[in-house]
This record gives sequence, structure tokens and C-alpha cells, in this order.
Amino acid sequence: MQNQAWVIQKPSVGRYRPDVLRLEQRQVPAPAEGELLVRTLYISLDPSNLVWLKLLPGWMEDVKVGDIMKGPSLGVVEISRHPAYAPGDIVTGPLQWRPRSVVQGALVRGIAAAPNAPLADHLTIYSHVGRAAYIGMMIVGRVRPGDTVLVSGAAGATGSVAAQLAKHVGARVVGIAGGAEKCAFLAETLGLDATVDYRNEELAAGFARTCPNGIDMYFDNVGGETLDTALLHMKVHGRISICGTISQYSGNEYSQPYRLGNMFYMLMKRIRMEGFVTPDFSDRYDEMDHALAKAAIKARVHWLDGLDKAADGLELLVTGGNHGKLLVKLADS
Amino acid sequence: MQNQAWVIQKPSVGRYRPDVLRLEQRQVPAPAEGELLVRTLYISLDPSNLVWLKLLPGWMEDVKVGDIMKGPSLGVVEISRHPAYAPGDIVTGPLQWRPRSVVQGALVRGIAAAPNAPLADHLTIYSHVGRAAYIGMMIVGRVRPGDTVLVSGAAGATGSVAAQLAKHVGARVVGIAGGAEKCAFLAETLGLDATVDYRNEELAAGFARTCPNGIDMYFDNVGGETLDTALLHMKVHGRISICGTISQYSGNEYSQPYRLGNMFYMLMKRIRMEGFVTPDFSDRYDEMDHALAKAAIKARVHWLDGLDKAADGLELLVTGGNHGKLLVKLADS
Repeated sequence: MQNQAWVIQKPSVGRYRPDVLRLEQRQVPAPAEGELLVRTLYISLDPSNLVWLKLLPGWMEDVKVGDIMKGPSLGVVEISRHPAYAPGDIVTGPLQWRPRSVVQGALVRGIAAAPNAPLADHLTIYSHVGRAAYIGMMIVGRVRPGDTVLVSGAAGATGSVAAQLAKHVGARVVGIAGGAEKCAFLAETLGLDATVDYRNEELAAGFARTCPNGIDMYFDNVGGETLDTALLHMKVHGRISICGTISQYSGNEYSQPYRLGNMFYMLMKRIRMEGFVTPDFSDRYDEMDHALAKAAIKARVHWLDGLDKAADGLELLVTGGNHGKLLVKLADS
Repeated sequence: MQNQAWVIQKPSVGRYRPDVLRLEQRQVPAPAEGELLVRTLYISLDPSNLVWLKLLPGWMEDVKVGDIMKGPSLGVVEISRHPAYAPGDIVTGPLQWRPRSVVQGALVRGIAAAPNAPLADHLTIYSHVGRAAYIGMMIVGRVRPGDTVLVSGAAGATGSVAAQLAKHVGARVVGIAGGAEKCAFLAETLGLDATVDYRNEELAAGFARTCPNGIDMYFDNVGGETLDTALLHMKVHGRISICGTISQYSGNEYSQPYRLGNMFYMLMKRIRMEGFVTPDFSDRYDEMDHALAKAAIKARVHWLDGLDKAADGLELLVTGGNHGKLLVKLADS
């Protein structure tokens, strides 16, 4: 069997451009012992895709030029050579970007956490996205009732779940987003306490206005100047959870990384800053999914129709052009 | 009673200059209820003095222009109006920089931790210095046997205790210091496993040479470029303890703070970075002093003779001209 697959053409240097990927006709091998043949329904487009495509050492070592791109996806098992799965099972995992692909059964998960939820919830809430929000907010960030919590990328996939988790815990939550539509979504649909529109207000002024007594916990999705400015507004013993640093994935070829000037406040304010990635906490996914189900999270999906939209779709993460979790739909069921 | 006292003339802006302090004749009040009159033997000169003298908001709020400078010191009680102390007791605490001064009894401590140790040990080992080393290495840094630990300012007061604690725990310890004499002291007297002489080697080359498999824990006394370079050499799940950031206290009036360019690695390597100050852990001082006594710490003291040496002496912390813990000796006993 052959099908169209997104193949990595070259490392992504500086700002992501869709030409690092190209659709090519490739063979689909027969599944070996322990493997599954899966028909993909939805592909998740994530900032981490942008990092993987840089092909940096020490990060997704097994992705290289000429390989088929892969990433978090949801599909239906068609052939199973793994004892835990049967044809018809819905699974999520690192599927190749193509209509059908072969994956090791050990790398996917079923959808037992919320079997009656809409399928897309398994790429938004009960997924790497919702779990990243949980880890950053609850485990690394240790948010507590009454905390003032600041979330960047708050209208994005992870940020919006993180902000809702903090509200569920009883924190006062301030969201940063770009543009009036996103800020209105945060205030009205998600019920955040305040918003900072970085396209229409200086960050420092916005943080001073919305967090006049300082920030207990900053959930960072963007890094760069936003992180640097947040350092100035942290409370003593504040915590910073580094979930992503998208401002630093998306510079152009000529730009240098943003250089933080306020690190002195790490000491002055006795701040704890910690970076994390979701797979390091995989032994706690069930606990997280259970907690996410109880928090009644609302997920907004930004749908793209058809496999051919994937490479261009990733660029929306660079421009902030997405409104909610970016999912590419290959089929409905 | 009157005596000579170091009085703050103006805030210290940029690089410290001794003219922010001047000796003036000032009255010594009679001790009120709860207070002590203490005759000072030794004054400790610390990087934190440089920060206090900046008179920044949120940091030693009670120090201002026209006040007598104060800081960690050791003295003999001459008059006690506090029930816990009697004349002749040796105490340490934030004494004014003058031969005799009045201090609240609640702010000083006796020397019960090691009553038979040389008096100077109570400003080096059983003190804010040794306790900062303990907190940064053991509590915040959680050093473990077999860890590769990097210490900046390793020949300095806190760094040298921190490095010895890590050796005592069974870590492999690499010390950074400026100049061959300090590096020889680290290797030969303190028994460190390797050294990086920042005056004679690029930091990146030195870290690659001495920590080829990466750094588990970095104990940072200096901040700036050293911290930035360490970020590149941390292991996944590495920890960074921010004890001080002296490179950033001592720029001149025109210089900007060093801006860190490698913050991306906080996420890539899932690093935890945490700043701390010793007084936040004051309920654990007894535990720390006990552990420090068991670790058989060697302290090297750089003595300055006479109260009049204090203001110039602080400048040695800016130039790295001190060899060991800077103490000003006013009297021997």
C-alpha cells in the first residue's frame, strides 16, 4: 500500500516555513509483531512540532531529513498485531502525517479516560495538551486557591486549559493573548478575571494593571520578552512554569534569541523557575485525565480540513493566527 | 558615648565605590529594654552588602542615606537588657559598622552550635555564609552522591563551603575561580575534582573539558555570562541554585545588566532554577549548623585590620581581590 506523506526536506532554521515539509508518495509497510496499522482521523498541530523540525541534537533524536513527519494524532485501528488493541479501537499517539500509518502499539493510548467525550477532546483535553496544562499548573506550578496566576498564550491550546484549571482551583487568573477577539473569549467564555492584549498594551503596563500586588505563578508558553517582563512583576517566592517558549522558536534566520535582562530578580524575589515536558510525567497520565474530567474544561478547536493543510497550518502557530487548538481533519470517523 | 561609624552617603549606583560610605562621629544610645550593647570584634564583608547599599525598594527596607551601615558581625555583649544574653556572651548578628553598637537581642544569635571553634568560624561556617552554602547545595540544589556539581565563585566565602559540602556528600565537584592561586587552593586544599580558571580559559571550553557528561547541579554565585554558559552544559533535569549574582552587582553606571540568551534550555533540558536567601530558612539554622560541623569544613579568612578598612575592603568583592572570607578585625577578644 502507498499513500501521500509529509516528508521532512531540511531542518527548520529560524522562522518556520512550510517548505521544510513536502507531500510525497511513500510505501506503508505491513505491521510487524507489536505494531498497529492505524487510519488517522485528526492530526494535532503543536508548537513542539516547530521545535522537532529544527532537528536539534537531544530532542526527538529519531527525526531526520527524509523521514515522514509525525506527531500527536488520533486514529482508528485497522489491523492490530498488539494484544491490547483490536480493529475499530480509537487510539492517540505519535502517528505519521499520512492517511494510514504503522505505529508501535506501545506508543499509543486508548481513550478510556472519557470514552463518551467528543473524539477531538482526546487531542485537546485528555491529551499531551491538557496534560501539559495540568503538569505546569498543578505539579510544577503548584497553584493554590487565591493565587494570582498569569498565563501567556492563554487563548492557545495549552494556555486555555491551564487557565481553566487555575480557575477551577480557585485562583485569580489573568490571561495574555493577542487581539480583542481572543481576550473577549478569555473573559467571556472562559471567565478569566482579567486579560492583557499584548497587541494593544505594553506588557509591563498590562501586568501592573492586572496584577497590582504581583504574580504568584506564571505559566509561560511564550518565553522571551513576556517572561522577562513577568520576572519584574513576580511576588517574592513566586513560581514560573516553563511550558513553551514559542517566541523563541519562530524568529527569522537572522534574529538572535531574546536575551533576558531581569534574571537578577530570580534571587531578589527567590523565584523558582522550572521547565518541563509532558512525557517525563507519563506515569501520572491517568490521574491527570481524571482531574481534567472533573474540571469541566472547555476546548475550542480550530479545524483545518484535509491532510494537505498540515504544513501551512503549522505557520499559524508562528503568527498567532490560530483561534484554539489546531487540528487537521483527515476523516470524521 | 560616641564613636566612629560608617554612614551611608548615597545609594550605590552601578559599580560599588567606597565613597558611598564615610566614617562619622555618632552617638551610641543606651540600650533599651530587649536590647544589647555589643562590642564588635569582627565585621563580615559580603556581596549582599553591595546589594543593600543600592538602597533598592524591597530589599533591606530599613537602610537609607544617613543611616549607619550594618551587616553580619561578631561581638561581645557588654550590657544586656535581653533575658537570653549576659555580659561576656559572644553573639553574631546585624551589628552596626562601629566599635560598639546597640542591637535588639532578638536579632542576634549565640554560638552554641560550636562553642569551642575559633571565633571566626561563626562568620564563615556557622553563619549566613555556611548556611547559604547548605541551603543552596542541600535544600534547593538537592545534591546527591555521584552528581557532577559546578560551583562558581568556588574560592569565595560561600562557594568554598558549598563545594566542600558537595564533596562531603559524595559528588564530583568542579570549581570556577579567577587565577592560578585560587584554582590551586581549590584542587589542593579543598580537594575538588577539577577547576576552571575563568581568567585563563573560555567558560564554554572549561565546562566541556571538566563536565563532559553535563552538569547535574550548578551552584551560582555570579550570574551573568557564567550562568548563561552553564545553561548550555546542564544535564536534562539539572538544577540551578541561585545564591548570588555578583557579576550583576558590580557593573559601572553605564553598563546594562548581562542578558541571558540560553533560556530556551530551561525547557529543552527541563531545568529547575531557584533563587534563595538565607533568612527564609531561619527555622532550620540549628540543623544546618549541625550538618556543617559534621562536614569538617575548612574556612580560609582574608583578614583586614581595623574598622577604617571596611569601605575599601568591600571593593575587593567587586574585583575578586579577596582570597577567602573577608573579615574586618576590630579587636581580638
